[in-house]
Amino acid sequence: MEEEEALRGLWEEVREVSLGTTPAVERLQCPPYPLDFLRHFVSPNRPCIISNAISHWPALSHNRWTNDYLSNALRHSTVSLHLTPSGRADALAPISSSSSDLCFASSHVERMLFPDALSHVIASSNGGGLVAYAQEQNNCFISEYSPLVTDVETHIPWATEALGCLPEAVNLWIGNHLSHTSFHKDHYENLYAVLSGEKHFLLLPPTDVHRMYIRDYPSARYHYSKESGEFTLKLDEPLRYVPWCSVDPYPTTDCLRQEQISLYPRYYNGPEPFSCTVKAGEVLYLPSMWFHHVRQTPDSEGRTIAINYWYDMQFDIKYAYFNFLQSIG
Amino acid sequence: MEEEEALRGLWEEVREVSLGTTPAVERLQCPPYPLDFLRHFVSPNRPCIISNAISHWPALSHNRWTNDYLSNALRHSTVSLHLTPSGRADALAPISSSSSDLCFASSHVERMLFPDALSHVIASSNGGGLVAYAQEQNNCFISEYSPLVTDVETHIPWATEALGCLPEAVNLWIGNHLSHTSFHKDHYENLYAVLSGEKHFLLLPPTDVHRMYIRDYPSARYHYSKESGEFTLKLDEPLRYVPWCSVDPYPTTDCLRQEQISLYPRYYNGPEPFSCTVKAGEVLYLPSMWFHHVRQTPDSEGRTIAINYWYDMQFDIKYAYFNFLQSIG
Repeated sequence: MEEEEALRGLWEEVREVSLGTTPAVERLQCPPYPLDFLRHFVSPNRPCIISNAISHWPALSHNRWTNDYLSNALRHSTVSLHLTPSGRADALAPISSSSSDLCFASSHVERMLFPDALSHVIASSNGGGLVAYAQEQNNCFISEYSPLVTDVETHIPWATEALGCLPEAVNLWIGNHLSHTSFHKDHYENLYAVLSGEKHFLLLPPTDVHRMYIRDYPSARYHYSKESGEFTLKLDEPLRYVPWCSVDPYPTTDCLRQEQISLYPRYYNGPEPFSCTVKAGEVLYLPSMWFHHVRQTPDSEGRTIAINYWYDMQFDIKYAYFNFLQSIG
Repeated sequence: MEEEEALRGLWEEVREVSLGTTPAVERLQCPPYPLDFLRHFVSPNRPCIISNAISHWPALSHNRWTNDYLSNALRHSTVSLHLTPSGRADALAPISSSSSDLCFASSHVERMLFPDALSHVIASSNGGGLVAYAQEQNNCFISEYSPLVTDVETHIPWATEALGCLPEAVNLWIGNHLSHTSFHKDHYENLYAVLSGEKHFLLLPPTDVHRMYIRDYPSARYHYSKESGEFTLKLDEPLRYVPWCSVDPYPTTDCLRQEQISLYPRYYNGPEPFSCTVKAGEVLYLPSMWFHHVRQTPDSEGRTIAINYWYDMQFDIKYAYFNFLQSIG
């Protein structure tokens, strides 16, 4: 109980001294100077949204990235398309229809020409048991979408100067409103640029790690059969376990919501998560080790397009404190 | 016991990932660029020593600060002189000769013309029950030593640019080899410039707070009688308590050393404190919240002279983590 109080004290204090007590993310009207970015955001591990940060990119300034333009520019490009039954990839799911035990389910990944992948993303916005998301977190923008590199910047110059290195990976995401990304954290400083549509983030600082109920789940993967149009979920062999956040912040029924509240009271009864919507033309600085959950709203052409830049984080005293915090309680 | 292990894990991890496993302080051969200073030292809360950082100051480049020069320049200046029986001010001392109970003892402060103060500092290097230290931590360089401002810089330009503000206080210290400063921490980013002689630091990161055995001690003050040449130590009235580090890293006898080891095993059995000597012409960056103990070696004229710059620290996630850590165990 004493420890519980100390944890609550931590969640409150980080907000009082640094993050603010209203769960909103600070908005800058233009890109910061590298020194200011480092001093006010990276060093204290505080998120911010930067407006007017990428409006000069040809992709945006000429409103260039229509479906037609992209399909033409990438007509010869093979890209990775992630398929799931409901839009939740890298998320917890019941191991089988007869079990309430959860596993960590990865998507079925299909490689195909971009125009086909884009058609799947748009067509699958009606759901119907198949949701497609064009993405791959392994530097896919550079490896799969290179014909587009002159339409954007391959790094964020003021962030590169502040952090002292180029991004380790640049990832492109094209999805519809059904794709969710479940709560997790990354060991990177993340600059998340939205090019079309909107992204909706829930954010929790690393101090709040105990509110995520990270537990080990057996890993599994969806397998999609074109013939039957059905997914089957198969546990990895040999069996391995992945530590993942248990909380689902958007339970779909009242009953599930009550279950979430009783299973994960620290999440539901603690300070509200920081929440923000990042619009086309804006960049979110998502600090290393912050837990984030992402949803999206598509543009008039049915897609949300984002590029995120992963910069190496510093493994410093903050990281040591985090591991200590996680090791107790 | 589990908690004890978690604490030891923290002390080790912060060294493994960030500070280095040898207890040495990184040395830079010239002042860093502000961005590099912020990125590699302030943000990760890591100390460094900067050589050739202040050699251009007239005080050093012209070897100007002889005793004669200082006494002449400051002949009309009234300064604060701190008097103690042994050189340990703001340190723990037995409440009386008949008690082993400790109090937090502040020095007797006398205001006098600088030439007299300097004579006392030098004359008192033989001990004999009186040690004088010209210092005052309340921005004394600016308020008491203003005739010297053109001989040095009133801020450290690259640190000012990195930290985004001018120093909150600039303090001058003129002492002899008997003056010690006991383990404590400050809520400032500290740039510590040595102008003459040497300063010897022991440093422990804030993660190691439990190794300092911070406890509440009743505060007291030395009163010096010119007539008798004796000090009396009087508890403050009304009684008040000051939280202070219990560890004395340099016990003067074997017996005291054994006592220290048995009372404060986490200090003596944990990783060695970082230790460094800062020479004339060098600057130590002493990060906020680091515990430090300071001794000194005088120059050929019998004094050690230093100026330290206190810059406001950021109260951020590191500060919240520290308070959490301190609240447990």
